[in-house]
Amino acid sequence: MKRILILGAGRSATSLINYLLEQADTYDWIVTVADMSLELALQKIGNSSRGNAVQLNAIQDVTRREALIQGADLVVSMLPPHLHVYPAKDCLRFNTNLTTASYVSPEVQALSTEAAEKGLTFLFEMGLDPGIDHMSAMQIIDHIRDLKGEIQSFKSYAGGLVAPESDNNPWHYKFSWSPRNVVLAGQGVAKYLYQNRYKHVNYSRLFAQSALVDVPGMGIYEAYPNRASLTYREAYGLDNIPTILRATLRHRGYCSAWNLLIQLGLTNDSYTMDYSEDMTYALWVESYLPPSNGKTWGSLKERLAEYFGLNVEDESLAKLEWLGLFEEKLIEKVDATPAQILQDLLEKKWKLEPEDKDMIIMQHEFEYTKEGKTYRHTSTLVQKGENASDTAMSRLVGVPLAIGAKHILLGNITNAGVHIPIKPEIYNPVMKELADYGVKFSSKDEEIN
Amino acid sequence: MKRILILGAGRSATSLINYLLEQADTYDWIVTVADMSLELALQKIGNSSRGNAVQLNAIQDVTRREALIQGADLVVSMLPPHLHVYPAKDCLRFNTNLTTASYVSPEVQALSTEAAEKGLTFLFEMGLDPGIDHMSAMQIIDHIRDLKGEIQSFKSYAGGLVAPESDNNPWHYKFSWSPRNVVLAGQGVAKYLYQNRYKHVNYSRLFAQSALVDVPGMGIYEAYPNRASLTYREAYGLDNIPTILRATLRHRGYCSAWNLLIQLGLTNDSYTMDYSEDMTYALWVESYLPPSNGKTWGSLKERLAEYFGLNVEDESLAKLEWLGLFEEKLIEKVDATPAQILQDLLEKKWKLEPEDKDMIIMQHEFEYTKEGKTYRHTSTLVQKGENASDTAMSRLVGVPLAIGAKHILLGNITNAGVHIPIKPEIYNPVMKELADYGVKFSSKDEEIN
Repeated sequence: MKRILILGAGRSATSLINYLLEQADTYDWIVTVADMSLELALQKIGNSSRGNAVQLNAIQDVTRREALIQGADLVVSMLPPHLHVYPAKDCLRFNTNLTTASYVSPEVQALSTEAAEKGLTFLFEMGLDPGIDHMSAMQIIDHIRDLKGEIQSFKSYAGGLVAPESDNNPWHYKFSWSPRNVVLAGQGVAKYLYQNRYKHVNYSRLFAQSALVDVPGMGIYEAYPNRASLTYREAYGLDNIPTILRATLRHRGYCSAWNLLIQLGLTNDSYTMDYSEDMTYALWVESYLPPSNGKTWGSLKERLAEYFGLNVEDESLAKLEWLGLFEEKLIEKVDATPAQILQDLLEKKWKLEPEDKDMIIMQHEFEYTKEGKTYRHTSTLVQKGENASDTAMSRLVGVPLAIGAKHILLGNITNAGVHIPIKPEIYNPVMKELADYGVKFSSKDEEIN
Repeated sequence: MKRILILGAGRSATSLINYLLEQADTYDWIVTVADMSLELALQKIGNSSRGNAVQLNAIQDVTRREALIQGADLVVSMLPPHLHVYPAKDCLRFNTNLTTASYVSPEVQALSTEAAEKGLTFLFEMGLDPGIDHMSAMQIIDHIRDLKGEIQSFKSYAGGLVAPESDNNPWHYKFSWSPRNVVLAGQGVAKYLYQNRYKHVNYSRLFAQSALVDVPGMGIYEAYPNRASLTYREAYGLDNIPTILRATLRHRGYCSAWNLLIQLGLTNDSYTMDYSEDMTYALWVESYLPPSNGKTWGSLKERLAEYFGLNVEDESLAKLEWLGLFEEKLIEKVDATPAQILQDLLEKKWKLEPEDKDMIIMQHEFEYTKEGKTYRHTSTLVQKGENASDTAMSRLVGVPLAIGAKHILLGNITNAGVHIPIKPEIYNPVMKELADYGVKFSSKDEEIN
């Protein structure tokens, strides 16, 4: 018998817990789900005889956390990313393996040598992005290397979107993941490499110059570069690649409308509007326009059109209007930053309704040369959710993590130290089982020029 | 005999020290100048028999600092702003008065009640801005109130500029104060009030929509709103004023050229370019432009013109070119943020040469109503420096501080607690003596429809 301890039973843990409980009889597992809310943990294990639910504040209840980790063969941490380091240190003391869907923090990386010495596997970045992105890209990269091809360009796109059948708003977007991350997306700078030159895109221009991406079978989407396109260059063995870009996908028209919100300053998270109590959304938006200096003006929409040099019929303005930003209705969130006020509004407008389906698109585009010829390989994943609770987003985060957990327990993944899934012995079994589960990339190969 | 302790002998302390030493015989003062560098302190007191120089690390040498403060009748702190709280606490313990040219921090404000109970004067914001701005504005505000006028609008402009006779670069700007503050100016948001409506200007638009200001006798300048126009509304007794704005003055053309630097992202201070070693300024600027996608392009200047929708002959582009941003010359500052690289370049280009004169302009514009009529009062200060060491900037910071110090010692300023110079008993003696010293506002009154 093996004991699995899952820390955190939130929304994103559902698919993970379901997968592990379904296979618990086959592999003789006991799955303990620990959460601040005992009720939530109980709900997640349902009536499975293989599941245990315990109440745990993973940070404050140190003794109980230690006891649980000491008794486990594997810990799966679904805690907020900055908290993984606490169970990770316990895992070192009690010789327990660990896996998560989060990025490796410097604090966790610092534990790698000790974990390696003890023969422990700390497998991170096992979700969707990071996770499936690494595994699917590395499968292709290793394959092209086997063919003796030389990779010239790697562009990788991903987006958490709404499925076309549930798409009924002018933004063509609904939240399937952290609204705060969506509102603050791109603040700072985006860095990538294009034909051996560093490229930077400042936040003030990021959504103004999105690129178009053809997703086979789905049509044309917009993409804006992510902050960190260069991070995995070395890990992927692409140190000398001339072009590398990671970008986020959105429906066409999203970026230019979002750019208006950025230009006005509605995504600013750096100051509190402590006088917004008596402000309507229309007054709020107007506060970002220059004074009229006594001129006679038209509607707020007309003034925005003039300010941005747009036609008043521009779809970007219609998107802002649909959000209620031109309404003389009191702001509901007060004493908040502009970004928080905007997020509050968007959470109402961009909510997945119970029967709405979300959709994940991930696409890798490689260009490589071989024997004097240039080839393009395109690999695309399109995955739809079932409804607002069983989303593609939560499945694609939870299932690869669960599969990775299984293979650690089965002794198929034994890499000691802190790892991410970029080696064949890790990604092959996971990608194979994901395909059985229906998570399949379709690919296209073509010779170009 | 009275003992004055000056903490810090840096550049901005010169005028202060000179003023106090000049009057030391008259008033029987001993002026002790304490600095980390004994050499610098010695240099500043010169051969005055009234001056003492001591070596002091004001934070680490606690015992010596305490002894010096205990032996003083007044402390003038020229330490970096966040350090004033240390001498302030000593002043409370040893019953010593204190004055500085810096903003009141929350830590200092928290000491006000105790200072008041002990009858101690802690007089802050006694420099130029903050300092002369408060005093000159309050003189007018109190005067209009005496006339039973009702203030409808208060706009206050200030700029540290280069004097026309030393203006020989296309930006018409040279550094007379902290270069870092100039490079980062406006990041965040500017807030002001216009006709009873809050106005916000996001950084991405701040320099794109500067206003024009007529400075009598000097011509037209550009102004961009400061962060904190609303801060002193209450302190000035203008709680219900419909329009209040504080703004920074620049020569015409500065703002639209600076806006290009902002739009590109060259003022971003949030990430380090750890790969800039082999980068030229031209490659750096180019890294912010979208990829050419195989098109044949012209010069970097032509591509920037196309990117920003400008004519290639636009003066903004000429300003960037003059800075050397289009040159294939290696970046001199490496492992730095864009803002630091830009600052390094600007410090060479915008340096005050030894014989260059700087220039301060401060202008207040009031509109007030009285007996059914509307009046405009404009009050303007234009002050030029002598050369790069005796700048108008350092004089206008040091001299009001020194005059305030004198009146505290003479018992003319006795307000107990933490104060800023907004009361007649403080600003009147200081403004009177500043006028004798040549620091005079000229004013203009007119009736407007």
